[in-house]
Amino acid sequence: MLWLVGLGLGSRGYVTEEAWRAMRGADAVYLDAYTSFVEDGLLDEVRRHAGGRLVVADRHVLEDRSREIVSRAASEDVVVAVPGDPLIATTHSSLIVEAARSGVPWRIVHGVSIFSAAISRAGLSPYRFGRTVTLPRDAEDEVLRGIWRTIAVNSSTGLHTMLLLDTAGGGLTAGEASEMLLGSVDSSEVDEAVRDPLVVYCARLGMSGERVGVARLSSLRSIDLPPPPHVLLVPSKLGPGERDFVRHVLKSDEEPVTVSSPVHVRAARYVAKARSALSRLEVLIDTREVRRALDHAANYVSDAENFLNSGREEDALVAVSYAEGILDALRLLGAVRFEW
Amino acid sequence: MLWLVGLGLGSRGYVTEEAWRAMRGADAVYLDAYTSFVEDGLLDEVRRHAGGRLVVADRHVLEDRSREIVSRAASEDVVVAVPGDPLIATTHSSLIVEAARSGVPWRIVHGVSIFSAAISRAGLSPYRFGRTVTLPRDAEDEVLRGIWRTIAVNSSTGLHTMLLLDTAGGGLTAGEASEMLLGSVDSSEVDEAVRDPLVVYCARLGMSGERVGVARLSSLRSIDLPPPPHVLLVPSKLGPGERDFVRHVLKSDEEPVTVSSPVHVRAARYVAKARSALSRLEVLIDTREVRRALDHAANYVSDAENFLNSGREEDALVAVSYAEGILDALRLLGAVRFEW
Repeated sequence: MLWLVGLGLGSRGYVTEEAWRAMRGADAVYLDAYTSFVEDGLLDEVRRHAGGRLVVADRHVLEDRSREIVSRAASEDVVVAVPGDPLIATTHSSLIVEAARSGVPWRIVHGVSIFSAAISRAGLSPYRFGRTVTLPRDAEDEVLRGIWRTIAVNSSTGLHTMLLLDTAGGGLTAGEASEMLLGSVDSSEVDEAVRDPLVVYCARLGMSGERVGVARLSSLRSIDLPPPPHVLLVPSKLGPGERDFVRHVLKSDEEPVTVSSPVHVRAARYVAKARSALSRLEVLIDTREVRRALDHAANYVSDAENFLNSGREEDALVAVSYAEGILDALRLLGAVRFEW
Repeated sequence: MLWLVGLGLGSRGYVTEEAWRAMRGADAVYLDAYTSFVEDGLLDEVRRHAGGRLVVADRHVLEDRSREIVSRAASEDVVVAVPGDPLIATTHSSLIVEAARSGVPWRIVHGVSIFSAAISRAGLSPYRFGRTVTLPRDAEDEVLRGIWRTIAVNSSTGLHTMLLLDTAGGGLTAGEASEMLLGSVDSSEVDEAVRDPLVVYCARLGMSGERVGVARLSSLRSIDLPPPPHVLLVPSKLGPGERDFVRHVLKSDEEPVTVSSPVHVRAARYVAKARSALSRLEVLIDTREVRRALDHAANYVSDAENFLNSGREEDALVAVSYAEGILDALRLLGAVRFEW
């Protein structure tokens, strides 16, 4: 049997009984020590349980020798032990896929994952999170811009963002993440209001020296945190229970800034342009029909403004674009003169 | 000290060492037996650890007597033990808030949460989930429609949806959830393609009788599952690793259907309407200017089509609305005749 076993948050105390049982009974225990953090106390305890059957595996062992591991599991109890939940990073799902394809019995023992623990420790509601992102150490500009876009899209729909930081190579710190992100913010894409968002930082969650707090992204560089793993959460608008937690437990009185969606920003720009065109417009052919068409356009610009104020952003975009079409048609026919 | 302790997935094997330690040392252990499931074996083991200091608490005890519990924790070690992760449902965050406000020391012991375990057990990537939703037993039509909208919005941006089912009153089954959802689908809002989505169902994850599989939402009613807790995941487009897992581990060859976003559906409808208007349009004043304006409108309709095909949905909406404005202006001026 192939056992894929989660070890939890990286300290000894977060291992479940089920995980210890699997390791005690195994013929071999492969410990993944490269995708995440394992405290010395945990490593010692795994060694104590697994004895001489422990293999501390690097990426090479688990990825290149997966066939060998799975075929060994056909006749023996083989444990692959992974910090956190063993499948949440999907790196190891190929082991289970291979076992299933080869008819080797398998079993998954879930572990405490940073994915749920960070949300919970920050007092934020799991129902208010949008897409989660991860920041690799070698992230290029395009990846960093993608992270900003995800934060903006989540924020504009009232959703928080979880930002997992690279755990390889000693792990990325909150301060390093802050520098990478602030160095890549594209002011044409990211609303000024969220270029330095409030973040909840979680350092060493469930491990010795755990530290959780709230700060502006830019000030993370000057906060002295214990070594990684670090995780950042970027809250959007807080619910009442969330606000209480942030205020009284995380000790911050600051309110996260929410941001307008890209559609809102665009529609608002078009409305301003159309208003300005209408105010400076000169009528060249002054007939009742032309006046009617101009009124029609002006009404649609007003509609667009009202839609914007009531959060109906697509309706605003449709209305103002329609008004622009009317104005341009009148200009093409020589009935009016104006500049956009 | 107030200890908020997660018990994991509801079976004995999923309790961490840290959680047992907290319960053993406590002067009182309040066990939350109302927000989630606790197997008999786990209950017995908690009783064994906590002895006469165990209070099996209902909603009344934990919510109404929270002040009493917190003030007791000022001088004693009081554990509130909760299945899953103790804060993921946020029901209990008010206890920590109260402790923090009263200066009572507190500690959180995270537990294995269904929130991460379900994603992991389904072989889906946590980076590909959008907003999570929950289905209460007494959900009214508006709530059910909201769930459909969330599934549609997530799906249209390539994101999966986790659908947690009510755990109160014995828990909602996958079959009951399926009936509630299918009975409320509003065909004007939900793209036909996703009215009967492929779902991954997880029954009793981490508990006796665990069962995980893939089915159409409508066929959940006829699958014989063990009793709740049940959770549903609605996958959007699968990545390669996810597809391997669904195919070989969950044994399904079906592909989830992805759905067009509401903006896409709207822009496509407008383009069709504009195309039809253009094709049946009659020119009443045949001047060069009118022909130019008509060409201009037709070009924008073509642009809108191209934008739609390349995923630029807002650009499509802008272009086609602009074209409509031109056509309506020409009609208002009496230059053309057509019906929308």
